[in-house]
Amino acid sequence: MAKVWLDGLWTESHGSESFVAINPTTGATLAGRYPVSDWVDCERALAAADAAFQALVDVPRERLALFLEGYAAAIEADAEALAALASSETGLPVAPRLKDVEIPRTVGQLRQAAAACRTGSWALPTIDTAAGIRSVHAAIGPVLAIGPNNFPFAFNGICGGDFAAAIAAGNPVIAKGHPSHPGTTARLAQWAAQALTAAELPSATVQLIYRMSSAYGLKMMSDPRLAAVGFTGSKSAGLKIKQTCDQYGKPAYLEMSSINPVVILPGALAQRGAELVAEFSGSCLMAAGQFCTNPGLVILVGGADAEAFVAGVQAKFAEAPAGTLLSPQVQQSVLAGIGQVHAAGAELLVGGRSIEEGGRVAVQNTLLRVTGDKFLENPEAFQTEMFGPASLLVLAQDVEQARQILQHLEGNLTGGIYSSTDGSDEAAYARLTPVLRQRVGRLLNDKMPTGVAVSAAMNHGGPFPATGHAGFTAVGIPASLRRFSALHCYDNVRPERLPALLQDGNPSGAWRWVDGQWKV
Amino acid sequence: MAKVWLDGLWTESHGSESFVAINPTTGATLAGRYPVSDWVDCERALAAADAAFQALVDVPRERLALFLEGYAAAIEADAEALAALASSETGLPVAPRLKDVEIPRTVGQLRQAAAACRTGSWALPTIDTAAGIRSVHAAIGPVLAIGPNNFPFAFNGICGGDFAAAIAAGNPVIAKGHPSHPGTTARLAQWAAQALTAAELPSATVQLIYRMSSAYGLKMMSDPRLAAVGFTGSKSAGLKIKQTCDQYGKPAYLEMSSINPVVILPGALAQRGAELVAEFSGSCLMAAGQFCTNPGLVILVGGADAEAFVAGVQAKFAEAPAGTLLSPQVQQSVLAGIGQVHAAGAELLVGGRSIEEGGRVAVQNTLLRVTGDKFLENPEAFQTEMFGPASLLVLAQDVEQARQILQHLEGNLTGGIYSSTDGSDEAAYARLTPVLRQRVGRLLNDKMPTGVAVSAAMNHGGPFPATGHAGFTAVGIPASLRRFSALHCYDNVRPERLPALLQDGNPSGAWRWVDGQWKV
Repeated sequence: MAKVWLDGLWTESHGSESFVAINPTTGATLAGRYPVSDWVDCERALAAADAAFQALVDVPRERLALFLEGYAAAIEADAEALAALASSETGLPVAPRLKDVEIPRTVGQLRQAAAACRTGSWALPTIDTAAGIRSVHAAIGPVLAIGPNNFPFAFNGICGGDFAAAIAAGNPVIAKGHPSHPGTTARLAQWAAQALTAAELPSATVQLIYRMSSAYGLKMMSDPRLAAVGFTGSKSAGLKIKQTCDQYGKPAYLEMSSINPVVILPGALAQRGAELVAEFSGSCLMAAGQFCTNPGLVILVGGADAEAFVAGVQAKFAEAPAGTLLSPQVQQSVLAGIGQVHAAGAELLVGGRSIEEGGRVAVQNTLLRVTGDKFLENPEAFQTEMFGPASLLVLAQDVEQARQILQHLEGNLTGGIYSSTDGSDEAAYARLTPVLRQRVGRLLNDKMPTGVAVSAAMNHGGPFPATGHAGFTAVGIPASLRRFSALHCYDNVRPERLPALLQDGNPSGAWRWVDGQWKV
Repeated sequence: MAKVWLDGLWTESHGSESFVAINPTTGATLAGRYPVSDWVDCERALAAADAAFQALVDVPRERLALFLEGYAAAIEADAEALAALASSETGLPVAPRLKDVEIPRTVGQLRQAAAACRTGSWALPTIDTAAGIRSVHAAIGPVLAIGPNNFPFAFNGICGGDFAAAIAAGNPVIAKGHPSHPGTTARLAQWAAQALTAAELPSATVQLIYRMSSAYGLKMMSDPRLAAVGFTGSKSAGLKIKQTCDQYGKPAYLEMSSINPVVILPGALAQRGAELVAEFSGSCLMAAGQFCTNPGLVILVGGADAEAFVAGVQAKFAEAPAGTLLSPQVQQSVLAGIGQVHAAGAELLVGGRSIEEGGRVAVQNTLLRVTGDKFLENPEAFQTEMFGPASLLVLAQDVEQARQILQHLEGNLTGGIYSSTDGSDEAAYARLTPVLRQRVGRLLNDKMPTGVAVSAAMNHGGPFPATGHAGFTAVGIPASLRRFSALHCYDNVRPERLPALLQDGNPSGAWRWVDGQWKV
């Protein structure tokens, strides 16, 4: 039985239940058994995290940065083994994906977080010299980081975006790995432990629990020692977390669901329809569509060109090999989603069924279509997320109907508009964009939403229910760090008692808003 | 009957109920009758605000800035009449308070908001030129601004901090005045209307409702056309608002309650006890203690000097005239709070009763004391807010007990520590500050918490339940504007389609985070 990592020690879990992982490519059970933690484990994690938080206040940021960098280097050095292990647990390919894309992204993110931690510019230090008042964003307290199934590295609670942001902001993290890839998470935690020791950080700065019941998870969130939650996953789980955290007045940053509407305007279809068929199909089917930014809803305007696009995509979906899904749960969930969209009245163009092929977990590439009229009869049902290689094409009568459709959309992470380069779509663009803009975090032009750059300007967020708060992003440094912070003001506090980021000499070299100007 | 101001028109309310205001100095009913709006009014306000929001997207920020400045000038020009009217409705003195402190503060706040609106630096425009990704905080949508009883100008929903921040961030505001000063609110709205017309803004950029039932208020918050709420008031009302807004996934910025702990260390008591008696008494009794930053809990360490401080304050409280309270509701509420703290076992040193003096609304200046031991038996009861001229002194055995007391405190707006200037309190300061720091938004040294400067570095916020989110401040520009925003990212969006704040030439002159540096 694998051990949990609590307060710096690899410890026998107190829980009596356990679970295993399967290889979705073969259906075989993988070696290794992992504990389901009970409340004794959770309580130990909370107590240790609380103590670590008190201790971290006095730890120089440099040591946190060194930890993040040491951890990044260890992951990089072990990339081959990590990628192979993760591939066995997720069905995602080692290349082109885990080893050459996701691990480098994860390592880069940890290093960016280290740099942000070192200077402190993320914390928006603000100084009003005349009033003698200073403020800065500071660590908020222990963070529970709950990772999703679809990114075993980049969003893993033990090393992903929420982890990097929470640590760089000065908080201890209790990581909960996703139960579909516990081996990967455990191996990552070994490197984290080594880097933690090397950086001489408090022993409970990072802890690992593989799994706990939903009830114990929510009990942790109601505990005053837990300050915030970072979560990427399903809407149903996210809404439960939100309800509990809301009740106790603590922030939960949730990345829950998104269908990522893409509008293709008539001029673009006429100008480069065939290209768009390839671009959309590639984006929608990549990694079997298992991205939160997968283009799950395409709104087309334009008669014959739109039909040609539909036919082209249908052919691509039929001919492209069906990717392996992350788990039987994902398979069930995408089939259920497809069933709901179909039942609401969408026509199934291709796919729609599971694939029985040895033990491999897969569904057919799936495409559905519906008219704009029909969509507007039941817009909620047609926005059911189909997390997998599936998308719904909506054929709108005209731009005004496309606008009506957009007006009925819930909050999404992204929204895109493709338009011609000859100016013929400009009026339609101007008519649709204000409506789409209010409903998405990231607006794209002529580009598919998959691919979320770790950029300071990124917003991987959006209006509810895509996330819990439209003002924050889960990806992008420095902004993502501010989620896990509280605003700390110092009024008339004696100079020698100020935190380094607010001291007169600016020993950290941070950018600071001093008397109405950014200065370094 | 006064008219509501909906969609640019002063209109008969559709509601059938009405209310009046009283003069708390005399108990007399004031002239003027004000409508309680029903759902028809609320629905009109929401529909008009929604339309205004769509229209505002295309309005140059300069016109919003001109509105804020024109409004500020009009308030300034009418200061004498406004202050007199507000004094009759609140019992607060014209001088030194309404005319010479609060109106200038309010006007200054509107002007600071105008300046922030004009440059747009508040929105943290962020550009990653290599990735072609840009992001900026943008208007979120119609905001319901609900003002409190104790600041008829500086926090009024029609002209206060939330109003200024929401408008400067580009949002329409539906203002709800506090029912204790409807005449002041109506007069302010007249100036707002004039300034709105002069700036040629959409007619429903600002609207006014005097009062609605709690049920209709919450129904407005559940409506998709309302984007956010700004609220200053009681914890019970705030928690209801939070619950509704949380359920619908929209941000509510709530400033709810605070007892503002002040710790006075032994060295400070020995060094300047008499000064501290005067300083504390002045802060606690100013404006009859009706500040959310009133020092309602004082923790003393040190035997004879602490007793001398208690005796000194007791004498001051006994001899100082009892101020007029804002309303009979405040009188009832503070007496109830005092009753609870007393019932929990605090000793009443002075005051504790209402004052019957013609129709004037007042309570005696009230001081209670309790030992640290007793406090720790029931810390929740001893944290009951007494909103008025009342405070609880806690006599702790030693620094360790003071620390335990701090560990039991809920989130507060402020917390202060007084220490000696000879270094004798440094160990105690170091022991207590980390605990206090985590529980307050603004940490003070050697200064009372009343007086909230409109400074960029101010944090008028704090951990739950002082507010709903520890990362935001209700006072201080530019940060307060970001509450009423959503993060908008532009990925590969064509240059001519970008908002001004993100365009290459930086036409707004905003500070922008460009490729890792702040540039103007």
